[in-house]
Parts: sequence; structure tokens; C-alpha cells
Amino acid sequence: MRLKKIKNAGEIIKSSKYIVNECQNYKGRWKKLFKNNNPIELEIGMGKGNFIIKKAIDNPNINYIGLEKYSSVLVSTIKKLELVDINNLKIINFYAEGIKEVFENEISKIYLNFSDPWPKKRHAKRRLTYESFLSIYDYVFEKEANIEMKTDNDELFLYSIESFVNHGYKLKDINTNRLDEYNTEYELKFKSKGKNINYVSIYSKTENNK
Amino acid sequence: MRLKKIKNAGEIIKSSKYIVNECQNYKGRWKKLFKNNNPIELEIGMGKGNFIIKKAIDNPNINYIGLEKYSSVLVSTIKKLELVDINNLKIINFYAEGIKEVFENEISKIYLNFSDPWPKKRHAKRRLTYESFLSIYDYVFEKEANIEMKTDNDELFLYSIESFVNHGYKLKDINTNRLDEYNTEYELKFKSKGKNINYVSIYSKTENNK
Repeated sequence: MRLKKIKNAGEIIKSSKYIVNECQNYKGRWKKLFKNNNPIELEIGMGKGNFIIKKAIDNPNINYIGLEKYSSVLVSTIKKLELVDINNLKIINFYAEGIKEVFENEISKIYLNFSDPWPKKRHAKRRLTYESFLSIYDYVFEKEANIEMKTDNDELFLYSIESFVNHGYKLKDINTNRLDEYNTEYELKFKSKGKNINYVSIYSKTENNK
Repeated sequence: MRLKKIKNAGEIIKSSKYIVNECQNYKGRWKKLFKNNNPIELEIGMGKGNFIIKKAIDNPNINYIGLEKYSSVLVSTIKKLELVDINNLKIINFYAEGIKEVFENEISKIYLNFSDPWPKKRHAKRRLTYESFLSIYDYVFEKEANIEMKTDNDELFLYSIESFVNHGYKLKDINTNRLDEYNTEYELKFKSKGKNINYVSIYSKTENNK
């Protein structure tokens, strides 16, 4: 995502009712924060939030948490969200590498939408489907692993499928021409250019090894 | 494939110039049989042969071998082929499990088109992408492994991708909406019904372990 630097972005979003500040304090207690026992789904890299906001509105019996590293990206979204009241959506301004500090055995599903492909081999470790990330995800899943991934990037797509299988996950669905009503900003851009969208979902049969 | 039993099918096809009888005798010497050093590609389960015949006609610098277990399936194809002269095509009436008896370090690519999905778990060993088959393929490849697979069956597709990756192959391309000018009989049938065709190709980076 092209970043527009916004002055005091961190301060601006901090006061939003959607933002959970010092999110590490809720580790293991997110269901309490939502005040119900509904499943919690996490989007890592929510960007401007089109995907997760529509998900939250359409599925009131599921709780959603959007994670975004860049506070600047969140400012306009947060401002828009203040005009409505969505009780099953929270946003954390945090980094993917650190989610073991924030969650433990409480996430039902993780969404990875149009993650940075990090095409250079020496940057492979930064890809959100790199082996060490999958181990981190296993730690936060409530029961079995459950990941849905979308990407326009064919190399990241093939890499991620290999990474999932090598990690022991089972493939649930693959589609290289995904049509989806829950679009991210990227997705709409790529679709308008005629680029196909790749989709893969995985699960783990057994409980995650913690 | 629905089999129509044809009396003396084995005898009928035996005299064809395309059929290589006692094909085990050519193990390690197929390039000599073709009288050139062109790469050899093998379709396992050629059925009525639409795919491999078109491939052979369009690519005179590649040699093609079609393998088909059922002689009855080959009769009408052989009869049609007798009317033309295709020098880079041979057919063997043989079974996939036995190809180590027939080839050794001499196949450049294997095609698996619309293989029997064997959907029951207890029949998994019969799937042409089961682990033991991949080891057999490694034995016949000249250098690196190179497999192209098409199937209408989504379960076999996901199973095969997992099997390829678990075997250490790298994914080259995946497409769940494959459009292809080299159609098998099955493919045309499924396409006409609106069923998507799944495609996956793999390669091995290193030389196969023999």
C-alpha cells in the first residue's frame, strides 16, 4: 500500500471506540471484551478496512478484529466508522510478528488479503505465509487452524500453498479466479484491470500443537 | 471411462505401427526407437488419444508416448491413426504401475489428464498422484521431474497438490479455470457442462533421486 504520512495519526486514532489500545492487555480475554462467546476472526493487514467492515456488518454473530501496522492507513477509516455503530468490530494498530503477545487460543479464522508479496528471495521471511508466521498463527488459533488467503500475486500464491502444505495444513479450497462480494481496495483495483484473484483456504485436522 | 468390451482388442491393435509391443524391451532406448534425440513426453492414461495426437501433430520436435491400460479403448483410435503418418507418436498398451519396467532416465514430461479420482480413502493408493507413483515417475524422468495435470475433480486436485508438495516438488503453475487447446474427450464433456477444469504443473529443482 502506498503510504500517505499523516501527522499525529497515532494520536488521532487512539481515541476511537474501535481501536483497542494496549491490546496486549486483552490476551486470552478477547471474548470478554466483546461480551459474548462468538467466534473471533482476525484480518492481518486490514488496510482501509473495506473487507472486514463489510464482513462485520453482514455477520453480527461473528466478532472481527482488524490488525494494521500503519496508523496513517487507519485515520480516514476510523473517522468514517465513528459515524456508525458496529459492536462486533475492533481494530488494533499492531504488527503481525507480535500477535502472540496479543492473542492466545482465541482466534477462529485468519484472513490474509493481498499481503505484501516480498518478491525477493532474501525477503521471504517477511511474507505472512512464511513458516515462522504459520507457527505464530497456530498459537493464536482457538482450535484448528483456519486461514483464508487472497492475492493477485501468482508467485506469492504458489509459495504460500507450498508453505501451508509443508507446515502440515490441509488444503480446503483453491480458486484462481475468485469472485467475492467481500472486496478489499486492492481487489477492486486488480479486478478492474482484469487481473485474476487467487484464493486458497486451509485447515488443520488436529488441534494445533502448542 | 466407460469401457465397451471389444472382442480380440488386444490382437487388433497389436499389428498397428503405432503400438510398441513388448515395450519393456526398449527400456533406456526409446530415443533410438524414435531415431532422434528429441525430448520424450508421456501421457499416462491416454484414453482415446485426442490430447496426445494433437500434441504430436503440433510439436514435431517432441516425441510422444501414450500409455493406455485398456486395449478396447485403443481400437478405434488405432484404426483412425492408420490413415495418417505421425512419426513422433507411439502407443503402449501397458499399466502405470509398471512403467519402471519400460522407461529409465528418458522422459521429459508426464501428463496426467483426467485420471480416475478414486474418491474412497481406502483407494488412495490407486490415484496416479499417490506418493508411490511419484517415486516411480522420478525413476523415468531424464533430468528434473516435470508433470502437468488436468482434472475436473476438485478433491483429486487438492489431494494431488498436497502430494506433489509433500514429495518435494515445486509448484510451477496452478489454474482452476484452465482453457486449453489440447482437449481430452473428458475435458470437452465437462466444459460443455460448465464444469471448471483444474490444472497444476510441477517441477523438481534438483535431479531426481535414483
